[in-house]
Amino acid sequence: MTSQAAPLTTGPVKVVGTGLLGTSIALGLRTAGVAVQLSDASPSALALARDLGAGEPEGPDSAEPALVVVATPPDVAGDVVLDALRRHPDAVVTDVASVKAVIAAEVTAAADGAQRARYVGSHPMAGRERSGAAAADADLFAGRPWVIAADDAAAPATTAAVRAVALDLGALPVTLAPQEHDDAVAVVSHVPQLAASLVAARLVDAPEGALSLAGQGLRDVTRIAASDPRLWAAILVGNAGPVAAELRLLREDLDGLITGLESAAAEGPLAPGSVGALSRVMTAGNTGVDRIPGKHGGAPRRYATVQVLVPDEPGELGRLFGEVGHIGVNIEDLTLEHSAGARVGIAHLAVVPSSAATLEHELTNRGWRVVAE
Amino acid sequence: MTSQAAPLTTGPVKVVGTGLLGTSIALGLRTAGVAVQLSDASPSALALARDLGAGEPEGPDSAEPALVVVATPPDVAGDVVLDALRRHPDAVVTDVASVKAVIAAEVTAAADGAQRARYVGSHPMAGRERSGAAAADADLFAGRPWVIAADDAAAPATTAAVRAVALDLGALPVTLAPQEHDDAVAVVSHVPQLAASLVAARLVDAPEGALSLAGQGLRDVTRIAASDPRLWAAILVGNAGPVAAELRLLREDLDGLITGLESAAAEGPLAPGSVGALSRVMTAGNTGVDRIPGKHGGAPRRYATVQVLVPDEPGELGRLFGEVGHIGVNIEDLTLEHSAGARVGIAHLAVVPSSAATLEHELTNRGWRVVAE
Repeated sequence: MTSQAAPLTTGPVKVVGTGLLGTSIALGLRTAGVAVQLSDASPSALALARDLGAGEPEGPDSAEPALVVVATPPDVAGDVVLDALRRHPDAVVTDVASVKAVIAAEVTAAADGAQRARYVGSHPMAGRERSGAAAADADLFAGRPWVIAADDAAAPATTAAVRAVALDLGALPVTLAPQEHDDAVAVVSHVPQLAASLVAARLVDAPEGALSLAGQGLRDVTRIAASDPRLWAAILVGNAGPVAAELRLLREDLDGLITGLESAAAEGPLAPGSVGALSRVMTAGNTGVDRIPGKHGGAPRRYATVQVLVPDEPGELGRLFGEVGHIGVNIEDLTLEHSAGARVGIAHLAVVPSSAATLEHELTNRGWRVVAE
Repeated sequence: MTSQAAPLTTGPVKVVGTGLLGTSIALGLRTAGVAVQLSDASPSALALARDLGAGEPEGPDSAEPALVVVATPPDVAGDVVLDALRRHPDAVVTDVASVKAVIAAEVTAAADGAQRARYVGSHPMAGRERSGAAAADADLFAGRPWVIAADDAAAPATTAAVRAVALDLGALPVTLAPQEHDDAVAVVSHVPQLAASLVAARLVDAPEGALSLAGQGLRDVTRIAASDPRLWAAILVGNAGPVAAELRLLREDLDGLITGLESAAAEGPLAPGSVGALSRVMTAGNTGVDRIPGKHGGAPRRYATVQVLVPDEPGELGRLFGEVGHIGVNIEDLTLEHSAGARVGIAHLAVVPSSAATLEHELTNRGWRVVAE
């Protein structure tokens, strides 16, 4: 994931804030062969990052950094960026906070033009339930989008320097204006996060018998609701405007669903308007899902799914995928489905439609029980 | 999945309605060695089910059925059940519609006590995007919950006969009163379905750049939003009361989120009440997710997740799982994560915590790049 040859990044790079993101960036840059200086308000956090091999603590003898990466909590990122721009008059400065417009505004308000030209915000889209340097990983960003929140105030050389870091860490640079970024994460990340929590919150008072009927759909919808509330409260408050705007639109659709269902409950399925809102929202949902890009960022594509019953015994899954490998069909995506109490799982293998028949045939010949999608 | 030895079900079984569920039940019972009679208003649908090996069309010479399974659309199920109770005075009658209280009430209102004692509703929890006999499968119910909507009006022998069918088809019988069932599916199935659609509907007008940031969380939350709107509109209208009640509770939480975010947007993160609702809903979401049962219907358990980078080349996934099989660690659950544009995928392997270190160690020794969760 990290670059094999010479790094694209010009060092030394100073990383301010040695939590999960800062330490992971430092580790990745070190792996790529870039000199890294570390800075953190907490001596113990700093020592842990150093001991993990993330770099050397910044000291009086440290060389002047060519790039400063601010990886502090979002609420102080703006001030730390401004401090870095003043202390390192030749360095490019970026931050990796999950919200971009507010910080860009803070920097623009307090920096002179030359300083502002050396700053561009960024946001590596690397989700993680855990936090702290102990959870850091040089490969955290491999294959993940990394937003460069470029605007007219940032010099092209500034944007190029941050882009180089993303590439050295194996990430996929995506250029969006700060507000575009904030609006985007509201719809693709923050609203889904809250929706998962809203659905999971309905389970708190549900009877045991109801939970015993839980299927894969419920598990998928609520999986990210297990995330850290404190972490997310900070992220969401930092993007409060765009998230509230999206939630208001969602509530309009929800009100339509409730009204339709209430009329159906009161007057029966033939009540006027009882089905209209349901059909409209679910049809829009079909359209929305189709817009989510598939692999390689290409146009969304429909894969054929081959479902295979897998006995719940050690090695059975290995045997299945070993044979899929022999068959030579590439699995584009997969999920393993367990129902409560099941002694078998159902592996959902997504393949290009042209390969589905072959895979079904070959697996059946090898004694696997293939069930229709 | 189907029973090896003698079937528990006493036949012949008459299946009324040869769509996906009816034909799958018929195929499963035939596989288990039970005689099956088929009935459908559509001669072509009936012929297709017969040609698939689901049984013989009911005729003048057909033996009197011991059990009648009504697998018609929900809106006519009540009438078909009543007709079956009258035409087959010794048969147990069940239906497999996804809503239970309405049908039970219809039968209770029109049947005499002896007839009512021979009826109990049921609901095999076997989701499927496709419909029709062509998508039928004898293993459709393997390892899936099958609700027996037992009430005082149904004779114990009636409930036992339907339970036998569920067991012969490899399903997991769950006994719930009709209204308990309808309330349960509202919270574990119908509300999650609508929430997925509400989130996916927000993507319809989102810019391309926003979609390029889509990650696994969005994919998980919206996956079931790809389901058939017509099918679901019918299901949801049939359970309108309980679903509307749950959605009103969800809307209360949503209103709290919007109010909190709006105050944060207007007055900043320190605005009173800006974070309270966010924390409360997300903490409740944590609690709700913890209540979803794990495998084997046991108490919810947390698995350790080992994340492995998988080069996107044919056979790589096969090689990974082949080696996991050799290592001998059982994979409890797994997902494959692709970011847009990624040339690698990340396989999330869920294992019992005690096996995680071994698996990480062994995979790393074999040259796989294991990334921390």
